Amino acid sequence: MSTGLPMVVRDPALPARVRVHEVGARDGLQNESGLVPVDVKAEFVTRLAAAGLTTIEATSFVHPKWVPQLADAEELFPRVRDALPGVRLPVLVPNERGLDRALALGAREVAVFASATESFARANLNRTVDESLAMFAPVVSRAVEHGLTVRGYLSMCFGDPWEGAVPVEQVVAVCRRLADMGCDELSLGDTIGVATPGHVSALLTALEQAGIGSGRLAVHFHDTYGQALANTLAALRHGVSTVDASAGGLGGCPYAKSATGNLATEDLVWMLHGLGIETGIDLGLLTATSAWMAGHLGRPSPSRTVRALAGAAASHKES
Amino acid sequence: MSTGLPMVVRDPALPARVRVHEVGARDGLQNESGLVPVDVKAEFVTRLAAAGLTTIEATSFVHPKWVPQLADAEELFPRVRDALPGVRLPVLVPNERGLDRALALGAREVAVFASATESFARANLNRTVDESLAMFAPVVSRAVEHGLTVRGYLSMCFGDPWEGAVPVEQVVAVCRRLADMGCDELSLGDTIGVATPGHVSALLTALEQAGIGSGRLAVHFHDTYGQALANTLAALRHGVSTVDASAGGLGGCPYAKSATGNLATEDLVWMLHGLGIETGIDLGLLTATSAWMAGHLGRPSPSRTVRALAGAAASHKES
Repeated sequence: MSTGLPMVVRDPALPARVRVHEVGARDGLQNESGLVPVDVKAEFVTRLAAAGLTTIEATSFVHPKWVPQLADAEELFPRVRDALPGVRLPVLVPNERGLDRALALGAREVAVFASATESFARANLNRTVDESLAMFAPVVSRAVEHGLTVRGYLSMCFGDPWEGAVPVEQVVAVCRRLADMGCDELSLGDTIGVATPGHVSALLTALEQAGIGSGRLAVHFHDTYGQALANTLAALRHGVSTVDASAGGLGGCPYAKSATGNLATEDLVWMLHGLGIETGIDLGLLTATSAWMAGHLGRPSPSRTVRALAGAAASHKES
Repeated sequence: MSTGLPMVVRDPALPARVRVHEVGARDGLQNESGLVPVDVKAEFVTRLAAAGLTTIEATSFVHPKWVPQLADAEELFPRVRDALPGVRLPVLVPNERGLDRALALGAREVAVFASATESFARANLNRTVDESLAMFAPVVSRAVEHGLTVRGYLSMCFGDPWEGAVPVEQVVAVCRRLADMGCDELSLGDTIGVATPGHVSALLTALEQAGIGSGRLAVHFHDTYGQALANTLAALRHGVSTVDASAGGLGGCPYAKSATGNLATEDLVWMLHGLGIETGIDLGLLTATSAWMAGHLGRPSPSRTVRALAGAAASHKES
């Protein structure tokens, strides 16, 4: 690939800088069927930081029975925490027991995960939306007391496999409760990837009207229907400047019947850099990291940018 | 998948209707390594029409030595022409000999293909840009004399593998010459898929300033870096309402080192329908057609929407 690509053309209506919230090590690897050795995970996180990612969701303090892929959290977290003092390393905590584990290991940022729909709250948390928020309330308040930064994930913000389209007002109402509870940031998840840019714009407008502005919001799009990057562009137009993405598109298997891949960080960074938006990320180092991880997982990265650039690099080596 | 998805949210700044210029049968199949039987091609085009596509690029009247995959043009074209009287069926013609063949078979629309860069003109046409335009001039003028609609494809409008970023003014200059020559429509190709939305916007602005408005333009994005749909959204904001896409993402192999896939029609239609933009396309019939063609080609469709919906349909059958 020639240098000078993508050509940079700024759009003054978009943020000058975007912070990528990297979820590959947690959201990505928790969906892998095989277990990834803790050494590989630690190297993955370390390499992501070396590529310029400043916020890397490291792991999850859920019960190993539910997510055996992340059962090594107690071993992994201290290693990356000590190796990467300047990097934000949020961890997922489902309940007070999870928060205790995170606090014991010196985590400075935690995330809780709620659902905008009753069906998914039932399926994922075995609770109603009210019951799950009641479970999170003491987690958030205790985390805030300890001076931690708290993120609230909200799943199914656009569509739900059982309920179909999710009304914007319903999402705003749950966001309001998470914000009032003390969450510093809300990550709006399109868990099944069905959103389109007008819908994204409508939700962000409604949230702004409810007093939850773009500065407190992150977007978390899935590429199930190929919409993630177009939806991100719509969110940037609303001033959102924190975008969740997964290195190499890790998370869910894009080759399975029900493709549920996260937006690939590399595809996102290609667009952001073309738009002249600063990320601090070195795309070459990031791509090499994802190609390396794809090798460990034994299958090609679903990221189109990784395939294009890693392919180009391989061709270059051969020639 | 529940009904009611994607949720429809209109954006009044976007066109109310988009015409999809379907290129799968030509641009897609010409890049297939194996030969597809003419019966399968005819059924493919017929099924695309049944799914609501109104403009289907059927084949190419290039010399079979260069594109053996389309050597059956003389056999295919009359079959689909007679079967689909209300459908626009443009064909590619590289020179006057190709135009003669198209005219002899009663084609009503033709397309020529130029390059915005000298390097690609040399690689693809073995000519300079000037020489290639000189070759096309009599093709276009004779086609216009015969009352045909003429499309001018312009490759490498954003980046070129040898030259890197392509200056906007250079693209505008070649567009100007194609328009002056008599082309009714210009299709702006991002042949290597490197464009980002700001660059798209800059080129469309420059073309408008040069008197070539969105009504005469189509966009042709490749998903090599995952940018095609975000770029399409940027073009829609400029009023472009003709979008090239390939059913199932046919064209180039996304699993090869150098991914060069076309924007998948299904991924495009998912976004357009979510935005409340009329296309006349039945996404279910289209997806079924692409899944059927993927079966013939022996590999899964690279379209994320096809994988999601065809997977859902398969799950449904099993249950």
